[in-house]
Amino acid sequence: MKIALAQLNYIPGDVEYNSKKIINAIDQAKSQNAEMVIFSELAVTGYPAMDLLCREEIITASLNAVKEIAAHCNEISAIVGTPSPNTGVYGKKLFNSAFFLDEGKVKAVVNKALLPTYDVFEEDRYFEQGNVFQAIDFRGIKIALTICEDIWDEQPCGDKGLCRYYGVTPLDELMKDSPRLIINIAANPFAHNRIRVREDIFRKKASKYKIPLISVNQTGGYTDIVFDGSSVVVDSSGTIIEKLAFCREELRVVEVPLEPRKDITSTNLKCYPDDVTGYIHRALVMGIMDFFGKSGQKKAVVGLSGGIDSAVVLALAAEALGPENTLAVLMPSMYSSKHSVTDSVEMVTKLGIPYHIVSIEESRLALEKTVKPFFGNLASDITEENIQARLRAVILMSFSNKLGYLVLNTSNKSEAATGYGTLYGDMIGGLSVLGDLYKTEVYKLAKKINRERVIIPPQIISKQPSAELKPDQLDTDSLPPYDQLDPILYRYIDLERSPEKIISEGYDADLVKKVVSLVRKSEFKRRQAPPILRVSSKAFGSGRKMPVISNY
Amino acid sequence: MKIALAQLNYIPGDVEYNSKKIINAIDQAKSQNAEMVIFSELAVTGYPAMDLLCREEIITASLNAVKEIAAHCNEISAIVGTPSPNTGVYGKKLFNSAFFLDEGKVKAVVNKALLPTYDVFEEDRYFEQGNVFQAIDFRGIKIALTICEDIWDEQPCGDKGLCRYYGVTPLDELMKDSPRLIINIAANPFAHNRIRVREDIFRKKASKYKIPLISVNQTGGYTDIVFDGSSVVVDSSGTIIEKLAFCREELRVVEVPLEPRKDITSTNLKCYPDDVTGYIHRALVMGIMDFFGKSGQKKAVVGLSGGIDSAVVLALAAEALGPENTLAVLMPSMYSSKHSVTDSVEMVTKLGIPYHIVSIEESRLALEKTVKPFFGNLASDITEENIQARLRAVILMSFSNKLGYLVLNTSNKSEAATGYGTLYGDMIGGLSVLGDLYKTEVYKLAKKINRERVIIPPQIISKQPSAELKPDQLDTDSLPPYDQLDPILYRYIDLERSPEKIISEGYDADLVKKVVSLVRKSEFKRRQAPPILRVSSKAFGSGRKMPVISNY
Repeated sequence: MKIALAQLNYIPGDVEYNSKKIINAIDQAKSQNAEMVIFSELAVTGYPAMDLLCREEIITASLNAVKEIAAHCNEISAIVGTPSPNTGVYGKKLFNSAFFLDEGKVKAVVNKALLPTYDVFEEDRYFEQGNVFQAIDFRGIKIALTICEDIWDEQPCGDKGLCRYYGVTPLDELMKDSPRLIINIAANPFAHNRIRVREDIFRKKASKYKIPLISVNQTGGYTDIVFDGSSVVVDSSGTIIEKLAFCREELRVVEVPLEPRKDITSTNLKCYPDDVTGYIHRALVMGIMDFFGKSGQKKAVVGLSGGIDSAVVLALAAEALGPENTLAVLMPSMYSSKHSVTDSVEMVTKLGIPYHIVSIEESRLALEKTVKPFFGNLASDITEENIQARLRAVILMSFSNKLGYLVLNTSNKSEAATGYGTLYGDMIGGLSVLGDLYKTEVYKLAKKINRERVIIPPQIISKQPSAELKPDQLDTDSLPPYDQLDPILYRYIDLERSPEKIISEGYDADLVKKVVSLVRKSEFKRRQAPPILRVSSKAFGSGRKMPVISNY
Repeated sequence: MKIALAQLNYIPGDVEYNSKKIINAIDQAKSQNAEMVIFSELAVTGYPAMDLLCREEIITASLNAVKEIAAHCNEISAIVGTPSPNTGVYGKKLFNSAFFLDEGKVKAVVNKALLPTYDVFEEDRYFEQGNVFQAIDFRGIKIALTICEDIWDEQPCGDKGLCRYYGVTPLDELMKDSPRLIINIAANPFAHNRIRVREDIFRKKASKYKIPLISVNQTGGYTDIVFDGSSVVVDSSGTIIEKLAFCREELRVVEVPLEPRKDITSTNLKCYPDDVTGYIHRALVMGIMDFFGKSGQKKAVVGLSGGIDSAVVLALAAEALGPENTLAVLMPSMYSSKHSVTDSVEMVTKLGIPYHIVSIEESRLALEKTVKPFFGNLASDITEENIQARLRAVILMSFSNKLGYLVLNTSNKSEAATGYGTLYGDMIGGLSVLGDLYKTEVYKLAKKINRERVIIPPQIISKQPSAELKPDQLDTDSLPPYDQLDPILYRYIDLERSPEKIISEGYDADLVKKVVSLVRKSEFKRRQAPPILRVSSKAFGSGRKMPVISNY
């Protein structure tokens, strides 16, 4: 059975763009003699469309688009994801549906039964759950058509192991129709610590039911969420026999063996990174590329401090957008070390990235002079440090306003977690590139970026981290060393362990309490942070919802 | 039957604080000879606790607190809301529960069956739905104990009228036990356009089932969400016979008639505002008060421009926190009109609010000079306007850092909707006070504030709105007049009508398209805005989730 997997990159809300892309892929698949082409979950509206799903004009447009797409399904069949109206007497107004198109029309509509509402997923907000389990009939072959979560009857729950959120296992129900193939259309976001979990589910389901499984995922950056694609074909023994590109569009026509095939054991994985940091690298580059591309923007500006975070962001921006579309702005003050400028200049020169050196000294003096009369005899403190960070933000934003650059934020997850950053200062930007990477992970990424050739000067990587906002300042003046800090943050934030539990693991009690207190007190800053490219299963942003005002 | 309604103000996550408050109220109710005391939904953890509900330490603490609270329930019974663990084989790990405490122990646990997941509610994220419907037995009297949404089997859905989200009607099920009273523990947020809807539900349910209904709501500001209390006792004919305070804590002991009583027809409503603007006024003041009080802060700073928005925010801040805890900072530039300063000084002087005049001129000149060399011959544009707004933000934040003031944001809903504001400029602040009020509503509020005595100088209310960022600038240079703009925004945002539908109502097609385009393009700004005090049923914030990157 010849099936095309269409792993594409969509724009939420842009029904016209998405459906043109779908029709184009149908034509391509047809020209390659595929019998069927499969698109990902909610392809027509784009995923996540969020509250755009509440807008009648988007739903109407998507339903009209399905009719138009169906008209192209002659000699080929298609599976296309988009919402369908719930016409029942109760429930949310929509289903999250897979449309089975053949012979120029809609032959069947399958509704998602398991609606994830945890982490970044909010599907119960929009959709009613499907409760009909019936295989579709494709020219005499029964197919179990499922939508993403439908095949995930168990969920990884951090320390709690696997959780069973749902009372029904759709595949068990569908098996009553004796299907010969499982198709799963998905919108499965990238998380560097979930790659294996996902593949295991695919393998387990195929081998459990002894039929092949195809899962088609979307790809691309969607504001903060990155979808890596990595669509697969798994044979009935549970072996992945095809795996589509990582973080890239691909249309691949595959001969799917309905019987177990022992002869195929490898697939073309050349395009895949060789370690976790490699995955993260690729996901971030795509995240930047799409944030710009999908909003019609081209050029990024990065405030280059001489530290590792901004150097890594600059390198990623140059890779995603081209050095010519990336501007580095160096904004030294009297507290900046000389090497901060020379190291930065070395980096941009080598990469061919245009740069400006813009001193903040005159503005700093003027502003400090302006506010000083109101502060009496109070000593210099964090106020004056923040003024520097905020004036740099004003300068970066003036490049943005005047010349059309989008500011990339350079904060990392350790800083975001502890509130070690200036709101409206270094915390600004249209997009946070490293906000889901702890500082220790940023180091790994910097080394990965430098693996083939030196892009980030080694002295930027090896120097002691400093905000350089007062004389001889080091991050360790305010924070524990990152190799002590990050494991505690990871346990508290990512694994949601209680402080008591972390202490019982052997971490210093005072240190744990201090770190946890920093995290709790800085929620107000994170609430106003830019969208953060999510590369782990627990990023700051929509997957972690905390009250700003609380006490615990 | 003598029942105490405990309408209290909690802190999310602060189990110790909340349970002390609960125990204190139990003692008070006991001393007033109440047989039972009722607390609101999730009182022990505070509502909304959001992802604090995922933290084991909070859940454990709250379950321990329930035991301690139960120990105080001798001679009196209590209904207390807090999560309980789901020990079933599947589903979310918690139920949203009402604990029925009597004789020093937990006598019954009732789980919420209808879990709102729309607007600002995300209960499916945390809770499994209850499916057992059994009245509790209070000393021989059967009581239908329900939790908030459980009695809302139909929801107002804007233009769609009433929606039926759920397949079950808990009260119908509970009536099989022939209860003589309905108790509803609630966390029902304030929305000025939902006051009537809520009371109608209470009336309808009591009269439908011909038994009295008690609903106890929490009160207080919870970051962006304001809970007004307004707890009620409704007799079996559907008449509201008691109504607790609006936006204020109250413990009231009520003789609840289990049989219809025709003699009671009025209740003490002196503490209630007399119009919608009055409700909004009170809700905003409580929202400010609690944002500060619950985070241990006291003092607010407002950038006073001479326009109506900042004047209204200043007046509300002075009312909530006291004039002595409110600081006005006037930051004129060469584009500021003289009356902007004189009108502002007139206002603060009259109210006894301390103020400073801080010229931004020197900093503006320094910063413009700093960036000019990089902009070639490009003419002055929005860049220079934004620099002014951002320098004002730097100054306000320096007052915040040095002197401990929290900056109150002064943007209104019309500005937030159209993106007419400077990110990291006038859009900064810890809390947005007016972000859920259209400009035309701000005018009404200003007049309400001035009703008893003139607080805002009339010329501030009557002048043409201007950002004063360039010579002779008026808001109408960039935006349609607010009386044309706001009705379109209201239809598009609050009622979620399509542009086509709004045009078909008679609004100018080009104007509608322009306005809608402004809303769509400014999502990135709103994503980084401060929490906005929600006073309508559709505020920017967690109740309206939009992708930053989209195209529609």
